[in-house]
Amino acid sequence: MRGTIYVVSGPSGAGKTSILKEVLKKIPNLTFSVSYTTRPKRPGEIDGEDYFFVSKEKFVELVNSGEFLEWAEVHGNLYGTSKSFVESKIEKGINIILDIDVQGALSVMKKLPDAVTIFICPPSFKDLKKRLDNRGTEKEKDRERRLKDAKWELSHISDFQYLVVNRTLNESVKQLEAVIIAEQLRVDRIKDHMGLQDFFKESDNDVCDN
Amino acid sequence: MRGTIYVVSGPSGAGKTSILKEVLKKIPNLTFSVSYTTRPKRPGEIDGEDYFFVSKEKFVELVNSGEFLEWAEVHGNLYGTSKSFVESKIEKGINIILDIDVQGALSVMKKLPDAVTIFICPPSFKDLKKRLDNRGTEKEKDRERRLKDAKWELSHISDFQYLVVNRTLNESVKQLEAVIIAEQLRVDRIKDHMGLQDFFKESDNDVCDN
Repeated sequence: MRGTIYVVSGPSGAGKTSILKEVLKKIPNLTFSVSYTTRPKRPGEIDGEDYFFVSKEKFVELVNSGEFLEWAEVHGNLYGTSKSFVESKIEKGINIILDIDVQGALSVMKKLPDAVTIFICPPSFKDLKKRLDNRGTEKEKDRERRLKDAKWELSHISDFQYLVVNRTLNESVKQLEAVIIAEQLRVDRIKDHMGLQDFFKESDNDVCDN
Repeated sequence: MRGTIYVVSGPSGAGKTSILKEVLKKIPNLTFSVSYTTRPKRPGEIDGEDYFFVSKEKFVELVNSGEFLEWAEVHGNLYGTSKSFVESKIEKGINIILDIDVQGALSVMKKLPDAVTIFICPPSFKDLKKRLDNRGTEKEKDRERRLKDAKWELSHISDFQYLVVNRTLNESVKQLEAVIIAEQLRVDRIKDHMGLQDFFKESDNDVCDN
């Protein structure tokens, strides 16, 4: 059975990354899709784990070789989702979670209509501003751009399947976890991939044969 | 915002009732739909809590007055889902969970296409037989009838949206809980009921207004 692709998106500063980190610890058979980026590494980030950090030249090379499922310029930096990375995981039956900006998520949805899409948004615009201030890594110009982009991004909530309003980390982790577990139980998904008959056989089940 | 109706079904002896009891303890704003039945009360069951236990005459009266959302004969007894009970809850914004046989669930689905439907099945047919034996309340004839019905019921899994294979109580409770939480986060559901704009207002959110 092929793995499921979960696309998590939302404005910068909504708290996506913290939620994802906790969820990845809790759910077995779920892995994080490592993207390519040209943006500078932030303190604490690890190359090949948080992102593959590459130069603009290298990024353009990867674009030309068709390596990206989607790529986009966000806040002046390039971000790209590795097609080969994602495909190798789902072919092995591993579920994969993509953390991408709204623009990228919208193009992935068109290419991968089976993907499960989750929008994470802050409880208020005021809260979003505060989170960007607390991050402390933003220049004033970058901060203003992020807030402007957030307005456009929030207008696309209804293109997503699920909405998590990030009030507290614990609650949001529980909600994202619930979406991931529930989607694994969808009869449509099980049926599409291998048929219920096979599902029962695989789970050592003789219900359908009796 | 109107409540959501969750329909939980599956063969007798799959463990539905035990799972439901645990889930109801864990999830706020979720209540159990109390059905009418003509079957005899089992030890420990409470009238008005597990079922409304009524005579066959009273049941027929309720059928004629249009009180049932669905009703059916199962294993020689009559079971009916109270329309007024369910409607009074969802109008107040309370989510409600219906524990009904597969035949009843199929008719509720036609009447209430927005209902979330979950099939709970035992891990194997052998296991189902064992559970009915352990219940100890079954006459041999009843037991045989339940097994025969189970085969028909299991052939309808693909009419449901979610499948929980009841291997352990803990795992199944977690899975049913996940389905209930995830469905509350569906953008379609939020949008259909009140619009995202209102949703944000209600959650003290000024995201959309800025």
